[in-house]
Amino acid sequence: MAQKQVPKILARQLVAESRLLRIESIDLQFSNGEERRYERVQGSGRGAVLVVPMLDDKTMLLVREYAAGLHNYQLGFPKGLIDPGETPAIAANRELREEIGYGAERLIELKSVTMAPAFFSASMTLFIGQKLYPERLEGDEPEPLEIVPWPIDQVDELLAQPDFTEARSVAALLLMQRWLQAEERI
Amino acid sequence: MAQKQVPKILARQLVAESRLLRIESIDLQFSNGEERRYERVQGSGRGAVLVVPMLDDKTMLLVREYAAGLHNYQLGFPKGLIDPGETPAIAANRELREEIGYGAERLIELKSVTMAPAFFSASMTLFIGQKLYPERLEGDEPEPLEIVPWPIDQVDELLAQPDFTEARSVAALLLMQRWLQAEERI
Repeated sequence: MAQKQVPKILARQLVAESRLLRIESIDLQFSNGEERRYERVQGSGRGAVLVVPMLDDKTMLLVREYAAGLHNYQLGFPKGLIDPGETPAIAANRELREEIGYGAERLIELKSVTMAPAFFSASMTLFIGQKLYPERLEGDEPEPLEIVPWPIDQVDELLAQPDFTEARSVAALLLMQRWLQAEERI
Repeated sequence: MAQKQVPKILARQLVAESRLLRIESIDLQFSNGEERRYERVQGSGRGAVLVVPMLDDKTMLLVREYAAGLHNYQLGFPKGLIDPGETPAIAANRELREEIGYGAERLIELKSVTMAPAFFSASMTLFIGQKLYPERLEGDEPEPLEIVPWPIDQVDELLAQPDFTEARSVAALLLMQRWLQAEERI
């Protein structure tokens, strides 16, 4: 089907700004003439990465980390923002070394995902990390992250964990599982 | 393992506010004594729902909708905020009727997910919708959504679509597929 014509932006205005985030209001005219005011959030614009690290054929590594939005500890995969000048793969390898103390000789890109594209432009590249080797980099974490090894064949149990909730970690887990199943079929 | 002690909130301050969102700065002291200032975003606090609607055993329905954060059209599953007084299931059925013109006699809850729990408290309940019946409710959409039927056995093709990026839609798709596979094994 033909590409749909995006709404025309009639006006944009910065309505709120903090150290990390800017909230913008945009006045839109849709192709049918309807006009609406929407809000959207601009972050760093740097993009982010998330890695499913595989310690061996049977074990992946997760981290349990404080999440300020929920004010509790959440279980998920190592992740972080891409620094200026980094490719997504280089950022992925840095985050692994900072958060779990391993580098990955092999990174397999699974998919780029967005968070809530109605409000945010932020995009995150999901990877599998294989052939891990011990190497630690100092990160900016306020406390060491708890590293949680998890059997790859216990996906149901992981999905049932009450602190494993982040949609991007859930997507990465299931994409990793699909990738492994496809590998085995070859 | 014992529940980790959450950081102590030393101070909270509203740093920016718009019509829809509030950005709060929080000063935290971690259990090891480290102090940090974080930012987090508060939305409506109402929670949200997303539904994978199954028109029949072979076809799911997606929508293509304008996403202001990316300023383009995105393919995904029907979704929306829970209105005051609604349960997640009631909201799911209302969103289906508004966005695709069907209600669902059967809703199967897949999982509750979060978006980016380091910054947001927002949570979304993912459902499968089955036994659809035609019924349309007027929504607040500025234009009719494009409805996109998709064969359930073409998951790889959907994952490869450049406009199918939202992590919560990806998670719902793969959780739906797992649910179907488990049903077939019974």
